[in-house]
Amino acid sequence: MACNHTIHKHAHHFGWDNSIEPILTVTPGETIEVETIDSSGGQFNQTSTVADLGNLSFDKVNPVTGPIYVEGAEPGDAVAITFLDFKPSGWGWTANIPGFGLLTDQFPDPALHIWKYDAVAMKPALYGPGGAVPLKPFVGTIGLAVGEPGLHSVVPPRRVGGNLDIRDNTVGTTLYLPVEVAGGLLSLGDTHAAQGDGEICGTAIESPMDVAIKVDLLKGANFAFPRFETDGPVTRHFDTMGYQVTTGIGEDLMQAARDAVSGMVDWVSTRTGMSALDAYMLCSVCGDLRISEIVDMPNWTVSFYFPKNVLG
Amino acid sequence: MACNHTIHKHAHHFGWDNSIEPILTVTPGETIEVETIDSSGGQFNQTSTVADLGNLSFDKVNPVTGPIYVEGAEPGDAVAITFLDFKPSGWGWTANIPGFGLLTDQFPDPALHIWKYDAVAMKPALYGPGGAVPLKPFVGTIGLAVGEPGLHSVVPPRRVGGNLDIRDNTVGTTLYLPVEVAGGLLSLGDTHAAQGDGEICGTAIESPMDVAIKVDLLKGANFAFPRFETDGPVTRHFDTMGYQVTTGIGEDLMQAARDAVSGMVDWVSTRTGMSALDAYMLCSVCGDLRISEIVDMPNWTVSFYFPKNVLG
Repeated sequence: MACNHTIHKHAHHFGWDNSIEPILTVTPGETIEVETIDSSGGQFNQTSTVADLGNLSFDKVNPVTGPIYVEGAEPGDAVAITFLDFKPSGWGWTANIPGFGLLTDQFPDPALHIWKYDAVAMKPALYGPGGAVPLKPFVGTIGLAVGEPGLHSVVPPRRVGGNLDIRDNTVGTTLYLPVEVAGGLLSLGDTHAAQGDGEICGTAIESPMDVAIKVDLLKGANFAFPRFETDGPVTRHFDTMGYQVTTGIGEDLMQAARDAVSGMVDWVSTRTGMSALDAYMLCSVCGDLRISEIVDMPNWTVSFYFPKNVLG
Repeated sequence: MACNHTIHKHAHHFGWDNSIEPILTVTPGETIEVETIDSSGGQFNQTSTVADLGNLSFDKVNPVTGPIYVEGAEPGDAVAITFLDFKPSGWGWTANIPGFGLLTDQFPDPALHIWKYDAVAMKPALYGPGGAVPLKPFVGTIGLAVGEPGLHSVVPPRRVGGNLDIRDNTVGTTLYLPVEVAGGLLSLGDTHAAQGDGEICGTAIESPMDVAIKVDLLKGANFAFPRFETDGPVTRHFDTMGYQVTTGIGEDLMQAARDAVSGMVDWVSTRTGMSALDAYMLCSVCGDLRISEIVDMPNWTVSFYFPKNVLG
């Protein structure tokens, strides 16, 4: 689509630092086409193997394109970003990176899966024996500069956004991010072709894309955390056949989540014959972590929903 | 529907104790119509007011009908329950019970809302200014006897099930519960006309119903926790118009959930003019807690999804 501005992918930075000079200034209401680099920072490509994972330099991980200065944005406001369009690249990767992920203790070995998908038809992407993952591109990392000076790691999300990995930051959604510095200083990257709620193995279908957005400003919003609004249903690409669901129950939500996912990894690998590690990565790109109840003291119920249409 | 057996609601018990004598023995494959009492144990009715909440005796809370002895069930097996049909009563209640609920510190005052709904047409139930909550009846508490002798509180769920409050234990779902004692000793109650994932204020639309189930047996399943399978989409009664979503971000999933829900209570009360306490109870019966990401160390993202069709 035709946007008011285009930012090329070489205009990226690593981590959040409010002293980074903006590469573009926009007026609220304007549209921007943003090119992104995949979250490996271009260190992986369509021919990469697990050996390349061992050479991954974490200094180059998760580049974000920007920053964009939004005219009139002041602390206390919210920058509103509406996702208009994605131009997917047709390839992506999912990795198990040792030390990173919900079940890192159970899966100490590195793994890398390269995906190829039809960037026009966007048909479900094939995976191992019998898997086909419906695609829905979204932005994994989108945030504003942190008010506190200095360089802040790109890995954790914060109240200004960042590595939110919210699966529904996709076409039709408007995301509101709290402003901490003048101009907000918006950057984004880490585009994904598909992911379940939780991103449980630590990676999604990591896939470079161009993203078209509209930027607006909500004066005096005073939001404590990011908010968003979707323009329609969010799980219809996954929900057509229903779900297989495992649960974890206990006093700690994190452990309950781990138990729920462990149960599903067992189920998927038994059902398909794929290795537990392959099943774990598949669960990350399509399965959803939900909190079924958080009030029946002292035990909470966390559920992991695996969409049946992925295995047909 | 015509079932092989019927259990009347007077055949109920309080808490889980594997020494309670079964009131029925079934063969795997048989169907049972189970009458239930609402989770107040009949202490509330369609004319109850908040004053009655002050007199609530917790000894009579959450009765479950049963137990049912399943022939052939042994520890290590799973009892499979398929939900066939619900006969809703047409009324229900939602309460804020002081000391109980995700935001109990913010909402110390008791509240009781009585719902009336059309038990045949099952149209969305009206609530305050502009609210209309789509209904989807399900069983809140369903479990087997605990292996450990003695009386165990009905409040927390366990690996044998119990007060799971899983919104999708509804028509078409098959639930698998791990067996710890011979016969399993299945009981159920605490039926709900609607609830969101989390049941965040501590209660749903608590509504007595008759439930038709089929009971089967999966030998040697050795499940660590309950599992279930749905026969189709699970959120289409809520998702038609999309969602308003608030987030909480931080190192503790519980606090992130609290922050996400607090943000939504503010949004709903601002949008509708209803009190924060009324908004909190409305969120409990229709809004969903999801874990958007649980891997971006050290901060996790929890989101609370409020369905836009509830406010039209």
